[in-house]
Amino acid sequence: MAELNVIAISGSLRQGSYNSATLRAAQTLAPAGMKIEIADISDIPIYNQDIKDKGIPKSVETLVAQVLAADAILFATPEYNYSVSGVLKNCIDWLSRCNPMPLADKPAAIVSASIGRFGGARAQYDLRRILIYLDVHFVNKPEVMIASAGTHFDADGHLIDVDTREHLTRLLQSLATWTERLQAAKPATKP
Amino acid sequence: MAELNVIAISGSLRQGSYNSATLRAAQTLAPAGMKIEIADISDIPIYNQDIKDKGIPKSVETLVAQVLAADAILFATPEYNYSVSGVLKNCIDWLSRCNPMPLADKPAAIVSASIGRFGGARAQYDLRRILIYLDVHFVNKPEVMIASAGTHFDADGHLIDVDTREHLTRLLQSLATWTERLQAAKPATKP
Amino acid sequence: MAELNVIAISGSLRQGSYNSATLRAAQTLAPAGMKIEIADISDIPIYNQDIKDKGIPKSVETLVAQVLAADAILFATPEYNYSVSGVLKNCIDWLSRCNPMPLADKPAAIVSASIGRFGGARAQYDLRRILIYLDVHFVNKPEVMIASAGTHFDADGHLIDVDTREHLTRLLQSLATWTERLQAAKPATKP
Amino acid sequence: MAELNVIAISGSLRQGSYNSATLRAAQTLAPAGMKIEIADISDIPIYNQDIKDKGIPKSVETLVAQVLAADAILFATPEYNYSVSGVLKNCIDWLSRCNPMPLADKPAAIVSASIGRFGGARAQYDLRRILIYLDVHFVNKPEVMIASAGTHFDADGHLIDVDTREHLTRLLQSLATWTERLQAAKPATKP
Repeated sequence: MAELNVIAISGSLRQGSYNSATLRAAQTLAPAGMKIEIADISDIPIYNQDIKDKGIPKSVETLVAQVLAADAILFATPEYNYSVSGVLKNCIDWLSRCNPMPLADKPAAIVSASIGRFGGARAQYDLRRILIYLDVHFVNKPEVMIASAGTHFDADGHLIDVDTREHLTRLLQSLATWTERLQAAKPATKP
Repeated sequence: MAELNVIAISGSLRQGSYNSATLRAAQTLAPAGMKIEIADISDIPIYNQDIKDKGIPKSVETLVAQVLAADAILFATPEYNYSVSGVLKNCIDWLSRCNPMPLADKPAAIVSASIGRFGGARAQYDLRRILIYLDVHFVNKPEVMIASAGTHFDADGHLIDVDTREHLTRLLQSLATWTERLQAAKPATKP
Repeated sequence: MAELNVIAISGSLRQGSYNSATLRAAQTLAPAGMKIEIADISDIPIYNQDIKDKGIPKSVETLVAQVLAADAILFATPEYNYSVSGVLKNCIDWLSRCNPMPLADKPAAIVSASIGRFGGARAQYDLRRILIYLDVHFVNKPEVMIASAGTHFDADGHLIDVDTREHLTRLLQSLATWTERLQAAKPATKP
Repeated sequence: MAELNVIAISGSLRQGSYNSATLRAAQTLAPAGMKIEIADISDIPIYNQDIKDKGIPKSVETLVAQVLAADAILFATPEYNYSVSGVLKNCIDWLSRCNPMPLADKPAAIVSASIGRFGGARAQYDLRRILIYLDVHFVNKPEVMIASAGTHFDADGHLIDVDTREHLTRLLQSLATWTERLQAAKPATKP
């Protein structure tokens, strides 16, 4: 398999975040050839067009460069109030106003973890719609929604639940296959 | 360009439907090599698992065969009450219970027409979610939502609005490009 | 408490439906004064405006009268393909075209049951949006989504899971309180 | 009419925001007895539970107090990437973690303005779902979605479009009626 560079973005900023922990687990479970880098979005400010018009913040520029350079994107989103976190939405709002807009035509996958019973399902469906116009192509299956997250990680934030590890591994393989499929026949010009 | 067979499904059963009229317009605007067949779903009954367990109705079997044989799908959906029509949802509910499930791994595009101001937008986003698990791969852009539909067709149901014709033409080209891209590198086994 | 008449509508037509079974359980768990009647929607045909223009079918007229006469509505919806069933959507599409439109200003609650892990959550959120324009006022909480439904009912379709029975009871009490609150100060004219 | 205090929250921080301008217009169009105060959320930081655990920021505490003291809420949301802005979602994420949670049982209405053709429709439906669990009761109608916003305001940010002014006026009247209706029969305990 060719080398695939994946940029991973977590929608939670807290140190002990299950979503960030899921991304660290993904780094160890990635199929051969896939390298997953976790973006640091903690310095991205609240979006304000007046600020943007004075210049893209350095933290946003860094993320734009990382996404542009990546073959695919892995989102990890908590579900706050039945949707994606404001943190993640704010990050996407910034990316959508940059030129070049780095998300265009990128393959992507989503994981979500929450302490609730749905594991972030509602957030995932919103994220899919949020990225239609930005032209992201999501893997359909499997859908990895880690419910009751508190019981699936150890005290150091390692994903220890065997089923979830296997589920996540399959998603990463699916992302690799989907990315290679889309790269095999790139459009001459972006759609 | 290779020949592409598209099966088109309209979510409205009335004779004068703007959505069905849009599909007829699509037949005349399709790019070279694309052939669009319009399915007849008027005889598909209301879904009832007890009926299904006695045997798939002939009208459903016909649609299953048409979808299986097609390279891609073109949905035309009215927006009834802020979502897809019950007619279209019922049709999808039947397809989802058939074996083989014919929608798997199919490229698809959506058009919608309504007399309202949004042209069916709310229905389109629901349809995209409805078909995630069934593993349909939608074209992201352009999104063709024909608002104020009554002013865009003549008395005989011909799509006469120039901008809308051009918009629809671009969607069909986008569907052709997307289908060829996905067919260029099919997965060894269905995901 | 005053007498409250509730009309209940199930989005599944099969005899052994967990959703219909949930409505039968609700009849036995209703608070004092609440009477729940289950509508029979099995004869409502697929919506087609050409048919409607020739006259509202008798099965639809019956449902219109039942909804008009009711103080509140209790929906039970299965989740087919990440949304409400075509059966239920078709039923609502018919009601929305009737005059008077019987759903206007009605308080309502939703239950859903499915064999999957989400218990119909995705269907419930769609149903809430579907009924905004028709001016239904939904109870916010509790949200009763019966997952792994097969394990919650006995072979005769009785809801035997204690937690679910208690959860459903609280929803019915919430619907009673909400209905009384809205009836205490009815608007002079429909909004 | 009794005095109604409304707290208004805009999901856009830029000075020339059409959404903030819509809230200022609402202040002048409010029915007799309704007073609309516009919250300043520009200092609310990106949500991070680790920060929250050290103490609720003063800007959030101020907003909590304003919402608690209000009879109703008026949201103005731009539509960024087919949903509410990260700015607004982040603000709600903070409110949801405060004790008391100030949104509970509040009547609310939504306006949205965008330069696009849908006027923020997709954002409004997400906002309704986002606030179910937080137990907000939304006015159903009218839905005020100001499309092509650039043509509806003058250079100083005054809402000058006559139809939109009339539409907004009706929404505020509807919010007043809805708030009075819900206040007429408050539940003994919060549901």
